Amino acid sequence: MTSSVLPVAPTRGRLRPLGLDEVRITGGFWARRRHTNTTATLDHCRDWMDRVGWTGNFRAAVEGRIQRDRRGREFADSEVYKLLEAMAWEAANGDGAALDAGITALTDLVAPAQEPDGYLSTAFGRPGQPARYSDLEEGHELYCQGHLVQAGVAQARARGEGELAKIAQRAADHVCATFGPGGIESVCGHPQIESALVELARLTGRQRYLDQAALFVERRGHGTLTEGEFGAAYFQDDVPVRRATVLRGHAVRALYLAAGAVDVAVETGDEELLAAVVRQWEVTVARRTYLTGGMGSHHRDEAFGTDFVLPPDRAYSETCAGVASVMLGWRLLLATGEPRFADLVERTLFNVVATSPSEDGRSFFYANTLHRRHRGIAPPPDLDSPRADSGLRAPWFAVSCCPTNVARTLAQLPAYLATADDEGLQLHQYADADIATTLTGGRGVALRVRTDYPSGGTVTVRIGRAPADPWTLSLRVPAWAAGAPAWLVDPDGVRRPADPGTATVTRVFRPGDEIRLELPVAPRWIGADPRIDAVRGTVAVQRGPLVYCAESVDLPDGHEVDAVRVDTSVDPVDGPDGTGGPDGGTEGTVVVAGEVGAGPRMGRSEAAWPYEPLGQAAEARPAAPTGIVLVPYHSWAERGPSTMRVWLPTTDGSPAAATEVPDSGTDTGR
Amino acid sequence: MTSSVLPVAPTRGRLRPLGLDEVRITGGFWARRRHTNTTATLDHCRDWMDRVGWTGNFRAAVEGRIQRDRRGREFADSEVYKLLEAMAWEAANGDGAALDAGITALTDLVAPAQEPDGYLSTAFGRPGQPARYSDLEEGHELYCQGHLVQAGVAQARARGEGELAKIAQRAADHVCATFGPGGIESVCGHPQIESALVELARLTGRQRYLDQAALFVERRGHGTLTEGEFGAAYFQDDVPVRRATVLRGHAVRALYLAAGAVDVAVETGDEELLAAVVRQWEVTVARRTYLTGGMGSHHRDEAFGTDFVLPPDRAYSETCAGVASVMLGWRLLLATGEPRFADLVERTLFNVVATSPSEDGRSFFYANTLHRRHRGIAPPPDLDSPRADSGLRAPWFAVSCCPTNVARTLAQLPAYLATADDEGLQLHQYADADIATTLTGGRGVALRVRTDYPSGGTVTVRIGRAPADPWTLSLRVPAWAAGAPAWLVDPDGVRRPADPGTATVTRVFRPGDEIRLELPVAPRWIGADPRIDAVRGTVAVQRGPLVYCAESVDLPDGHEVDAVRVDTSVDPVDGPDGTGGPDGGTEGTVVVAGEVGAGPRMGRSEAAWPYEPLGQAAEARPAAPTGIVLVPYHSWAERGPSTMRVWLPTTDGSPAAATEVPDSGTDTGR
Repeated sequence: MTSSVLPVAPTRGRLRPLGLDEVRITGGFWARRRHTNTTATLDHCRDWMDRVGWTGNFRAAVEGRIQRDRRGREFADSEVYKLLEAMAWEAANGDGAALDAGITALTDLVAPAQEPDGYLSTAFGRPGQPARYSDLEEGHELYCQGHLVQAGVAQARARGEGELAKIAQRAADHVCATFGPGGIESVCGHPQIESALVELARLTGRQRYLDQAALFVERRGHGTLTEGEFGAAYFQDDVPVRRATVLRGHAVRALYLAAGAVDVAVETGDEELLAAVVRQWEVTVARRTYLTGGMGSHHRDEAFGTDFVLPPDRAYSETCAGVASVMLGWRLLLATGEPRFADLVERTLFNVVATSPSEDGRSFFYANTLHRRHRGIAPPPDLDSPRADSGLRAPWFAVSCCPTNVARTLAQLPAYLATADDEGLQLHQYADADIATTLTGGRGVALRVRTDYPSGGTVTVRIGRAPADPWTLSLRVPAWAAGAPAWLVDPDGVRRPADPGTATVTRVFRPGDEIRLELPVAPRWIGADPRIDAVRGTVAVQRGPLVYCAESVDLPDGHEVDAVRVDTSVDPVDGPDGTGGPDGGTEGTVVVAGEVGAGPRMGRSEAAWPYEPLGQAAEARPAAPTGIVLVPYHSWAERGPSTMRVWLPTTDGSPAAATEVPDSGTDTGR
Repeated sequence: MTSSVLPVAPTRGRLRPLGLDEVRITGGFWARRRHTNTTATLDHCRDWMDRVGWTGNFRAAVEGRIQRDRRGREFADSEVYKLLEAMAWEAANGDGAALDAGITALTDLVAPAQEPDGYLSTAFGRPGQPARYSDLEEGHELYCQGHLVQAGVAQARARGEGELAKIAQRAADHVCATFGPGGIESVCGHPQIESALVELARLTGRQRYLDQAALFVERRGHGTLTEGEFGAAYFQDDVPVRRATVLRGHAVRALYLAAGAVDVAVETGDEELLAAVVRQWEVTVARRTYLTGGMGSHHRDEAFGTDFVLPPDRAYSETCAGVASVMLGWRLLLATGEPRFADLVERTLFNVVATSPSEDGRSFFYANTLHRRHRGIAPPPDLDSPRADSGLRAPWFAVSCCPTNVARTLAQLPAYLATADDEGLQLHQYADADIATTLTGGRGVALRVRTDYPSGGTVTVRIGRAPADPWTLSLRVPAWAAGAPAWLVDPDGVRRPADPGTATVTRVFRPGDEIRLELPVAPRWIGADPRIDAVRGTVAVQRGPLVYCAESVDLPDGHEVDAVRVDTSVDPVDGPDGTGGPDGGTEGTVVVAGEVGAGPRMGRSEAAWPYEPLGQAAEARPAAPTGIVLVPYHSWAERGPSTMRVWLPTTDGSPAAATEVPDSGTDTGR
C-alpha cells in the first residue's frame, strides 16, 4: 500500500518512497528547523510578499490595473505558489487546520486571476502587457505555471482534492493545449514545468501530462531558444539532455531539468535517458561541486564553472541549486537505490539547505560562499537585498526564490528519510523519527529512530511493529565514514563492521528489538583533488556530514580568518562543548592546532613587492601555536558581520601568515 | 638645454627626461616591436577605424547625419586621437614625412567637426544626440577631448606647431570655460583630461590649463558623479585623491587619474599630493599587482580587486592598465628619481605591453590572463571581438582602446630609457640605443648602449662624447636581480658588485670609454606572498625581467598545461636555444624539471568525489620526471589556440597531477 502524501510519487523504480503520513521527524537538528519553518518562515514569506506586492499582483490583475501596478520580476507569481506548496506539505505534518486557512486565503487570491482557458500569469497577456509566451527565454511563464501545478499536486496529496488542485490542472491543460503537438514548438527558458507535469500525471493518471513533459525534455538542447548574453548552455539549450555529459549553465535550471528528465525517464521506462542523467550527475559531482555539496561557481550567470574550477571565494552555490540538487538526488535514489545519491542529499541538506536560513527562520543566504574576506554589512531589515551578497543573511531579496524554496524543502523533509521495497525498509537520512508503513504483502512495520546525529554518530532503531516473517532493514553508511571504523549492532548485540554503502539486517524482528549504527563522526582533515587550483595548499575539516569553517568572531585579538594557518600533523578534536549541543549547531565546535597571525613575512615591509625568488626568503617568524575554534559551516554569520573560510592554509605548506592585513579599499564588483 | 620632443615634460622634479630627438633605439627587443608598430600597427589601426566607421563619424557629424550614422561607442573619437598621437611620436623618430601626410589626412577629417566654441565630440550635442555633458559618468566627452589635447601636444612637440595643436588648444579652452570656476562643477567619469591639460600648460606656459587640471583632481572623490552599478569607487569618486590609500575601481581610470595627479603635484609643488600618490602606488604594487605587472582582477568592472585577491585565471590585467601603469611609473620616476618606479615600468613593458600585440602587430590582447584553461577559438579576422576574451589576440575590438594605446606607447618608448640631472645621466631601461644630450652647463655627452637584454644580462655603454670635467653615469640595477651577483665594470676594468638600486660611475669619461653592467638573467623560481590565496602551492619562473609560462603547444602527447607539475629542487635552466634569440622571443625558452600528467589520482575513478580525508589517499602514481619547456609570457598564443599557465603547481606541494582532464563542458560566463 502506497501513501498518497508523497512529494515525489514514481510509479516504478528501485525504491518506493514513504509519505508524510508515514514518517514523522520528532526531534533533533531537523525537527528544530522544521519547527522554525512552520512557526516563522511561512508567515515571514507571506508577510514579505504582501509587503513587496507580489500577492497583490493577482488582485491587480483581476481589477484591470496590473499593467500599472505590477510589482516584482517576471517570476514573482512562482513565490506565491512555492509558499502554497510549502504550506500544503506542512499541513500534512502538523497543524493542518491552521495552515488550511492560510492556503485557502492565498488560493482565493490566485484563483480569480486565472483566465478562462487556464492560463495564469500576472506578467503577460493582459492589456498593456507583453503577449503570452512572447519571451520564452526569460519570461518564466511555464516556470511559474509549473510551480502552480506543483502546489496543486501538493495540496491534493496533502489535504485532498481542493480548489488549488483544480486551478493547477486547468493551467496544465492550457500548457498541454498550447505547447503540445501542433502548438508552440518551444520550451521555457527556466525548466520546472517538466517535473510538475510528471507529478500531475502521477496524481491524475492522465498520460497527456507525461507526454507533454517528455516533449519538453526532448525539445530542449536543439537551439530552440534565442541565445542571450550567456549562450545556449545557460538554459541547457545547447545539447539535448540525453546526449549531454555534464551539467552546465545556470545551476538551478540545469538541476531542475535533470530532475524532470529523471521523472520522465522513470515513467516511460527510458533507461537511456536515465543513464544519461546519472552520467551527468557523476561528472558534475566529481568536478563541479563544492565540499558543501554546493553547485555553481559563477556569479554573473549563476552557473556551473568548468571542471575543477571551484574557487571558494567566488562560490555562488545558490541555495536554490542546493534545493534542486536534493530534488535530483532523491529522484535518482528512488530510481536506482544507490546510496551515493543519498550521500550527496545529506551533504547538501546539512551544508547548503541548512545554511541558508538564519536560526530564527527570518533571513536567508541566497548564495553560499565558502570564503568571506571582508565583513558584510547588515542589510536594512525593511528592504529587499541584492541577491548574491554572501556577507549576511537578508530577510528578502529582489529575486527571492530561496526563502520559499527552503520552506517547501523543509516541509517535505520527512519524506526523504526512508523508503521501502519488496525486501523491507531502508533508512537514508538519520534523525529522531517515527516511521510506520506497510511492506509488500500487507506486512505492517513501525519503528522509532533515536539519535543525536550529526553531533553524535550513534543511530538506534527500535522496532515497534513487525511482521512474523523475515524482512530486511537497511541503513545507509555514509561515504564520509570511509577510512574510520563504523559498526552495525544487531538485535542480538552482534557487532560487525559497516563499510560505506548499505548495512543490512535480515531477520524476523520483534517489537522492542534494537539495531544500532555507530558512525565515526570525529572531526577529520579533508584534502581536495589537486586539480582544484583554488584550494591547493589548504585543508578543510569535516565532522560527520558537517563541513566546518573558521569565523573571525572566534579568533583572538580581532584577527580576520585569513590570518589562520593550521597544523595538519595534529588531528582536529571536538571543542570543550563539542558534542554537547543537541544538533551540532554553533555549540558543536571543533578545535584545530595552528597559528593565528605571524610576524610580517620575510621581514619585509608591508609595501614590498609580493613575489620573490624561492629560497631567498628570510625565516618567517611564526606565531605561537594555538588552538583554533571552528564552527559548523551552516551556523556561520549568526553572530554579526564576520569573515569566514572553509579551506584553511597549512603551516607546513607555505610560509607563515602575516599579521592581519587591514583591507585598503572596498570590495568593488566581482 | 631641454629637448622639446618630450612625451612628458615636467618643469621641475628630480630627473629631467630626454627627448625623442636625444634617444634612438637602434636594435633588439624593442627596436623590432617599434619597427612593427610603424610598418604595420599604425596602418592597421587606421584601416580598422575606417572599416568600423569611427573615422567616418567626423564626416557624418559635419554632414549633419551623425544622429543616424554614428558608429562605435561614446569614446570612439579617442581612438582617432590616440592614433594621431602615436603617429606624431613616430614621426619624431623615423620617417617623419610619410607620417606627416597621414597626420594631415586625419587632422583634416577631425578639424571640421569642431564646433565654433571649441567643443569636439561626435557623440553628443548635435541635433538628435544627447546634450553636451548630459552623461558625465559614461559619456567620455572630456576623456575624448583630453586625448585630442594630448595628440595636439604630441604634434606640436614632435613636428612643430600645426593644425592639430590649434584644434587641441581650442578644445582645451572650451573645457576650461565650461568646467572652470563658475562652470559645471563636475568631472569626467573617465580621467584623462587631467594629464593632457597639464601637458598643454607645459607646452604653452598657460596657467589656465594647469589650474583646470588641478581643479579636476581636487573635485574628484566627493561623490560628484552619480553612482552606477559599480559604485563611486569605480570612477574614483569615493575618496579624494589626496586622502586615498590605494588604487581601486576601474584600473585604467585609477591609473590615469593618479598620473594626472602627479603632473599637477609636480607643477604646483604640492608635496602632499605627490606623497599621497606614491603611497597609493606602494600599496597597489604590494597587494594588487600580478607578477607580470598587470593590474586589475575583475572582469565585470575592469577593476582592481581587494588586497591579495589576484587569481591568475581571472586576471583582467587590461593592456591599457599596463600602459597607464607605465605612464604613472614614469612620472613618479621623474619626480622622485627612485629606481623602484623604473623597475615596475620595465616589468610592465616586457610582460604586459609587449604581450598585447602579436608578432605581426595586427592583433592584440585586450586582457592578459595568467592562466588559460581552455583553448581559445580564433576570432574571425574581419569582425571586431568581445574585449575580454584572453584566448587569442584579436585584430580589433568593439571597445578597441588597446591597439592605439600600445601604438602610442611604443612610439614614445625611446624617451623612457634615460634621464639627466645636474650630476649626469641615468639609464633606466636597457636596449641598443644611441643617446646624446646636453648636461647642465652646456656639457654635451653622447653614448651608445649595446646589449642583447633581456636575453643576455650584459649591458655595455660606450662613451662617444663627454665633457672634460667629471660627471656621473648611473645605471639601474633591477630589483629582480636581488640575491644573485650583479657587477659593474668601469672604464679601467675594475669590477665591483652592483646591488639592486642604482650603480654609478663618477669620473672624467673619455670617448671610447666602456662601462659594463652584468646582470644575472639566469632563470629563477619565484614564489608568491602566502596571502595570495589563488597561487598557494605554485611557483613561477622569471628570467631577467621576463615572466615565463607553460604553454600546451610545448607539452608532449597533447597534454594541457594543467597536467604540469614542477620540481623546484632543480633549478630552471636555459633551453638549448635559450639565449640564442636576439630578444628573448619564443626562441628564448627555459627548461624546468617536473612531470606532465600522472596516473589517476589515488587510484580512483575520474567520477569520484574530489574531497577525501588526508592521509587516506593511496600513493599517487607519479609520471616520469621530464624536462618541461617554458616560453616568455609575452610570446604565448602565437602558435594557435593553446592553454597556458604562469603559476605552476609543484610536485612536492601536492599529490601528483592526474592525467589530462578532457573538459566536459563549455566555459560559460565569467
